[in-house]
Amino acid sequence: MHHVEPIEWKPEGVVILDQLRLPGEVVYHTYTDYRHVARAIKDMIIRGAPAIGVAAAMGAALGAQHSKAETLDELRAEFAVITDTLAKTRPTAVDLFWAIKRFRRRFDELAHDAAPSSDPAAEIANIKAALIAEALLVHEERRAADRAIGKFGAELMPHTGRVMTQCNAGALATGGIGTALGVIRMAVDSGRTIEVLVPETRPYLQGARLTAWELHQDGIPLTLITDNMVGHFLRTGGVGAVVVGADRIAANGDTANKIGTYGISVLARENNVPFYVAAPISTLDLSLATGDAIPIEERSSHEVTHIAGVHIAPDVHAAHPAFDVTPNRYITAIITERGVAKPPYTETLRALAPSHH
Amino acid sequence: MHHVEPIEWKPEGVVILDQLRLPGEVVYHTYTDYRHVARAIKDMIIRGAPAIGVAAAMGAALGAQHSKAETLDELRAEFAVITDTLAKTRPTAVDLFWAIKRFRRRFDELAHDAAPSSDPAAEIANIKAALIAEALLVHEERRAADRAIGKFGAELMPHTGRVMTQCNAGALATGGIGTALGVIRMAVDSGRTIEVLVPETRPYLQGARLTAWELHQDGIPLTLITDNMVGHFLRTGGVGAVVVGADRIAANGDTANKIGTYGISVLARENNVPFYVAAPISTLDLSLATGDAIPIEERSSHEVTHIAGVHIAPDVHAAHPAFDVTPNRYITAIITERGVAKPPYTETLRALAPSHH
Repeated sequence: MHHVEPIEWKPEGVVILDQLRLPGEVVYHTYTDYRHVARAIKDMIIRGAPAIGVAAAMGAALGAQHSKAETLDELRAEFAVITDTLAKTRPTAVDLFWAIKRFRRRFDELAHDAAPSSDPAAEIANIKAALIAEALLVHEERRAADRAIGKFGAELMPHTGRVMTQCNAGALATGGIGTALGVIRMAVDSGRTIEVLVPETRPYLQGARLTAWELHQDGIPLTLITDNMVGHFLRTGGVGAVVVGADRIAANGDTANKIGTYGISVLARENNVPFYVAAPISTLDLSLATGDAIPIEERSSHEVTHIAGVHIAPDVHAAHPAFDVTPNRYITAIITERGVAKPPYTETLRALAPSHH
Repeated sequence: MHHVEPIEWKPEGVVILDQLRLPGEVVYHTYTDYRHVARAIKDMIIRGAPAIGVAAAMGAALGAQHSKAETLDELRAEFAVITDTLAKTRPTAVDLFWAIKRFRRRFDELAHDAAPSSDPAAEIANIKAALIAEALLVHEERRAADRAIGKFGAELMPHTGRVMTQCNAGALATGGIGTALGVIRMAVDSGRTIEVLVPETRPYLQGARLTAWELHQDGIPLTLITDNMVGHFLRTGGVGAVVVGADRIAANGDTANKIGTYGISVLARENNVPFYVAAPISTLDLSLATGDAIPIEERSSHEVTHIAGVHIAPDVHAAHPAFDVTPNRYITAIITERGVAKPPYTETLRALAPSHH
């Protein structure tokens, strides 16, 4: 199963595919400064909760790698700035904070384990190497998680018919085969005959630009629709399932995902179409009891009033919440790499979560 | 209450504002050939069910006016071609067929009433003048209907707060003050403090380009949103009512309107927000028992894969149903110029319909 790589760690730096320029141009940037990785996350050159987690991990490793610190204390102070900078890029996707927390913990372990040494340079080199290894491990874990999610989720897909998704929860969003698109890919690989309904997902058009592109490259049949066609197709279009990704899942299963997901979930339930969330366990935020506490990123209104650089509206006020929250009652099941959670989510999600979560 | 005129009958021809070029450019076309009026309807240079009715009426009058027919029989044959051409432009908006039916009936009356005369030229001139008068009457009736709809509907609007609409059911869509926007305008005029939530309405962006423009010109506060933000704002945005127009209303109240309307109606009901349809009685099609029989126009997929001339998606299949059907159970009330219909619509709409309908 070949698919595009949104991010890779290479000897020359962190290589990120510019998702703002797809599908027109396939452009890779090589970053050697962690601040540029942070900027790439903020500007959505890389996006999708799991891929943001990978980018934050690689950004943290990259920042440490290029540090000029000569003592452990200097490196510790610098690493705090690096991880703070990466944390201030986007507020909703919890994978970002999960990756940063993991890297801070890993740094503390490494610093703590470092034997008091007469060679601080060697000590620092060891820590840098270990942080790079950790970033590669995060990336590999994402890939493995996608495959496991895909395997569990494929069983829930219709044997034949249409499946709707939202935004892009594909390879471009995770660094693996994708979460929602991983489920669809594994279902197709296992012989199911699926056509994907792809809402374009304004304002960034991740559906039209990214999901349509990924599926088209894989030869999976698709129909592109505008976001306001979702209801019409759920009512009359023979849709057998909806599967979407997630940016943050609260302890009770309430799920923040790309703006529009809540609407799809309500319209799916109204038309008796099962609605699945596919996401790695790292997307689970057990510190939040419900979705009401999930911070929703408000982005620039310029992104609403302009499309592809063209001003499409008069000079008026525009809102741009980048995410919405789908209450748990609209979610048929949550597909993770550790298994499929069904209601009541407060119990089933906690049972799937790792003990150190 | 000043507002833009989408269409006007002038001595030099039918003047139509090019709605495809708004809001960037305000361009008027003057048509002297009814076939160009038909083309303007088909290409959506003029759109909105009531305005399409006015355009069809003026197109029919224009075609007759410029006829070279020398006998009544010649004119009758030519008028049949004219009205056929106008009828083949767009399938969903019933106002088009209502106007054409009305003009055919009016022609028959005029031809029947014409005294056998030794002066067929005078007879033909009389018929032409009467058809022009009929077109002006249709236009004036639209204006009066909008004012009456606005008056009835204003009472249903919140005294303060947000109102959501869809697409453009404004002056540009009717030739009057608008249906849905007429309701909002009259509510604001009567002292209510309303902010309008305007979904952009892909693929043609009538919300962003037309509704935002009309409201901005009137100084009515608005917030532009993408179509996939509808659910989020109905759930969390303090919306007191939704009011939309209609392209065709079946005998049971099922309503065809711009794609996305069905989704809004479901999300409104789910969040206990009243959902109103505002439309003239000419939009009512008592010949159809339910909305299942309403023909839904499928437009070019090019309109989905391109925005403002920019190709936004890879070369994939795209669907473009231009309308959807909202089942009557999601509609709180239907506001017409003859009064407000509430469920059960099969009874209440029939009671409002003119006896000759």
